[in-house]
Amino acid sequence: MSEYDDATRLEPGDDPTTWHGAFHEEWMIGNAVNGGLVMATALRALGGHLLADPTETTEHVDPVVLSAYFMTASQPGPFTVSTEVMRCGRKLSTGQMTIHQAGDHGEPVERMRAIGSFGNLTDLEVQRQASPPELPPPDQCLSAEQAPPGFLANAKFLERLDLRLDPSTAGWALGKPSMRGVMRGWLRLRDGREPDTTMLMMALDALPPVAFDLGLLGWTPTLEFTGHIRRRPASGWLRVSLSSDTLGGGMMEEDAMIWDSAGNLVAQSRQLCGVRMPR
Amino acid sequence: MSEYDDATRLEPGDDPTTWHGAFHEEWMIGNAVNGGLVMATALRALGGHLLADPTETTEHVDPVVLSAYFMTASQPGPFTVSTEVMRCGRKLSTGQMTIHQAGDHGEPVERMRAIGSFGNLTDLEVQRQASPPELPPPDQCLSAEQAPPGFLANAKFLERLDLRLDPSTAGWALGKPSMRGVMRGWLRLRDGREPDTTMLMMALDALPPVAFDLGLLGWTPTLEFTGHIRRRPASGWLRVSLSSDTLGGGMMEEDAMIWDSAGNLVAQSRQLCGVRMPR
Repeated sequence: MSEYDDATRLEPGDDPTTWHGAFHEEWMIGNAVNGGLVMATALRALGGHLLADPTETTEHVDPVVLSAYFMTASQPGPFTVSTEVMRCGRKLSTGQMTIHQAGDHGEPVERMRAIGSFGNLTDLEVQRQASPPELPPPDQCLSAEQAPPGFLANAKFLERLDLRLDPSTAGWALGKPSMRGVMRGWLRLRDGREPDTTMLMMALDALPPVAFDLGLLGWTPTLEFTGHIRRRPASGWLRVSLSSDTLGGGMMEEDAMIWDSAGNLVAQSRQLCGVRMPR
Repeated sequence: MSEYDDATRLEPGDDPTTWHGAFHEEWMIGNAVNGGLVMATALRALGGHLLADPTETTEHVDPVVLSAYFMTASQPGPFTVSTEVMRCGRKLSTGQMTIHQAGDHGEPVERMRAIGSFGNLTDLEVQRQASPPELPPPDQCLSAEQAPPGFLANAKFLERLDLRLDPSTAGWALGKPSMRGVMRGWLRLRDGREPDTTMLMMALDALPPVAFDLGLLGWTPTLEFTGHIRRRPASGWLRVSLSSDTLGGGMMEEDAMIWDSAGNLVAQSRQLCGVRMPR
């Protein structure tokens, strides 16, 4: 079993609204489990609910849109996902996901709440899509493996990925951020597992924060994240592009786009994150 | 009292989690109450909850981010907003909003569910923001009043607004869409009420769908909408810009940005909406 599948594995609870799992230390970034993995896990639960509940049977197997709010940092250890199906329509089925972990005194602490919709992304006709950015081939890009050991010790999550940053957008790693608010790179799972529509939601939140390219190297907690999945991805490398135009009041927006190896736009997202300005 | 304030007015229920109001026919677009008004109403309820609940006292009076999912079309008549405060943090207070109306047999039918966060947008320092687009002055733009009467009969909502479209992005009204996926214009409330942070959330969803500029003149229901409010707006005209790059599988993304009369970016949004392709 792939590391990724193992990390997002769920056991059904007493009914289709409850799912149990455990976050692994190996998927941490800073002092929290990577938010993308948390979202992918929540989507697996809602997808399982839609599949398991005989009154809700649909062909809606692909996450299409997800809006997630992060309340507290997810920690390694057991968690519970509660799901609620809000509406099964012709095109989309929509539901809510809540992830809890036990607090210091065993009380449930909410980590993330999200609303999202599933649909079916088989054989889509594309009318318009942004073209993928030009990137040097992966072997001419900077691997996360080349990052300083002190940085990697705090980013075990990056070891799960094969991430290659375009050198022209990785100057921040050498103390020379471009100040354009842009980051681009190639991404795949280290364990060789091919991307699917749920994994794309994680991939949208997998690169280092684009704030790094603006010289802001601190922690940038995701306050809200909305991702749209547009197609089932072809196998192989994903091309990820991050950008940000808006920074103020201690918050910034980060936009992500992902193209698959066939050159199709497969996912896009926007998140609002907190930033700490240097004094 | 302004039309807008009257349309979003709420009466408190038995406790701060329940609010009652009534949608007016005058705010309909097609066969539904305008989604932007529905969102602004939900935000007034959550804002009221945060203000009314003595255990949740914060200075978080401005909506900062909202993600809304539309389940069924809101109709003129009474509605109830249920609110839940999920977390009060230092920077943001986050909660959930649900709008119900009575169905054919009196049963509650969910119209919209949203999660959002309030903060405080007083005296923000802006580090980066996109510049406002160049537009001809309002009196050289096309007023919604000039639209065909048949169109306006189905869009009473537009009569509540003073909307002036840049002629270079309004060719669709004459059967000549630019096919660029762009729409720009000036916007203010017809009743003269000045914008505030809650009204901005409505303004993000107030223009005709950008799909019109791609020659798609049908109904484009909002499936998911996420808006970020970045500043308290200055008084006067708002400058709104819509664009879309992604259209496929019967869905498209629509991005909106709003600048105030001082030239500051005050709000941005992305929505996923349904489109019907011509055969």
